[in-house]
Amino acid sequence: MAQNIYDDPGFFEGYSRLRRSMEGLAGAPEWPALRAMLPALRGLRVLDLGCGYGWFCRWAQEQGARQVDGLDVSARMLERARQLTPAGGIAYTQADLETVELPRASYDLVYSSLAFHYIEDLPALLAKVHDTLVPGGALVFSIEHPIYMAPSHPGWHVDERGQKTWPINGYQVEGPRTTDWLAQGVIKYHRTLGTLLNTLMGTGFTLRHVDEWGPTDELLAAQPELAEERERPMMLLVSARR
Amino acid sequence: MAQNIYDDPGFFEGYSRLRRSMEGLAGAPEWPALRAMLPALRGLRVLDLGCGYGWFCRWAQEQGARQVDGLDVSARMLERARQLTPAGGIAYTQADLETVELPRASYDLVYSSLAFHYIEDLPALLAKVHDTLVPGGALVFSIEHPIYMAPSHPGWHVDERGQKTWPINGYQVEGPRTTDWLAQGVIKYHRTLGTLLNTLMGTGFTLRHVDEWGPTDELLAAQPELAEERERPMMLLVSARR
Repeated sequence: MAQNIYDDPGFFEGYSRLRRSMEGLAGAPEWPALRAMLPALRGLRVLDLGCGYGWFCRWAQEQGARQVDGLDVSARMLERARQLTPAGGIAYTQADLETVELPRASYDLVYSSLAFHYIEDLPALLAKVHDTLVPGGALVFSIEHPIYMAPSHPGWHVDERGQKTWPINGYQVEGPRTTDWLAQGVIKYHRTLGTLLNTLMGTGFTLRHVDEWGPTDELLAAQPELAEERERPMMLLVSARR
Repeated sequence: MAQNIYDDPGFFEGYSRLRRSMEGLAGAPEWPALRAMLPALRGLRVLDLGCGYGWFCRWAQEQGARQVDGLDVSARMLERARQLTPAGGIAYTQADLETVELPRASYDLVYSSLAFHYIEDLPALLAKVHDTLVPGGALVFSIEHPIYMAPSHPGWHVDERGQKTWPINGYQVEGPRTTDWLAQGVIKYHRTLGTLLNTLMGTGFTLRHVDEWGPTDELLAAQPELAEERERPMMLLVSARR
């Protein structure tokens, strides 16, 4: 079975205190940009891969989606999702995204927020996502940006001019990166941006939009602590069509 | 008129001593990857934007292209191209890519090597490229990678562990970057990778391949000095179809 950091008690506690966990979509600064890449959800069949607490699933239901399914590897996450969901109608299922089987041509939209960088065999998952979408169906996802993931020692550096920089190395060396984020030894899988996009195109997707997320002027005025996100991208948002 | 660094005597002298200038396509380490993205050229009408010494134009002619046109802003470059071209059949024309007019639906392939980062209004040029291609025609180009261009002070840093890193800042701040490369005050235009790809898609292109070029193991064995190109990408290679 794949790594399941979310059921590590320390990770779960730390995760539950993140703004995006407590406040939901409104606590995620990239949400407006990601939302703008989504189709109108009314009447759609929606699958969320790595649904966590189910914030997106609930929003999709509010938008009038016909069917909303959330998958997550973490039983604790899904338990919380079911508690937080006021009414029924959303199917939460425990599943390992490395080995999950998905029904053919069954969804109009597959969504995933910041989960794909934990997947070792992402090409296999993207092939399943392609096949579970109906022709013309949409894939919209966020993933940690390769610039953020690549370094052997990710972190800010202040240069001799006082300029904050993000030192990159190992960009072309794809594979696992072990970091200490909320828990020790969290494994993420670095791929170049080119590899990710070529994998999508090679799987049969047509790219629609690629957003290396950074804060807008308005957001920066409201949350000055996001200024460093102008220096290097932390997240990548992608939309594609089957 | 746009910046024309190539007619600066110092720049021209330095440029003429680069391996890729002296040895042509074989002196450019990214050429095999770029070549693999090209369609078969036999019978095609080909336009090279920023043709320089005409190495690609000559190769295209050798491959059996039906028509080969090379545009460059530099009269000195074109003079050298005409001298180096053994036979006729290639039309070399001086043109400013910021303001050039291109005939509609007249080419099967538009090629450009490391010129687009000098273009301030790249969206306007890409729209003209789209319209000068026949439907189904190909655009294949290389450009300096945004990771390479973004920093206010681009250059390697050796961290306290002895690791060579490439410190990034200002990635989200698009616009001019002034560097001293062969001549002082050379102006390049930084755009994020997302902006570049979205501009292409918004112009009507379908993306086919995105290569953040890095050396293969074989190339690295032959040219160990390319090892640093594994740490961060310097060039981006893109193919797209009208």
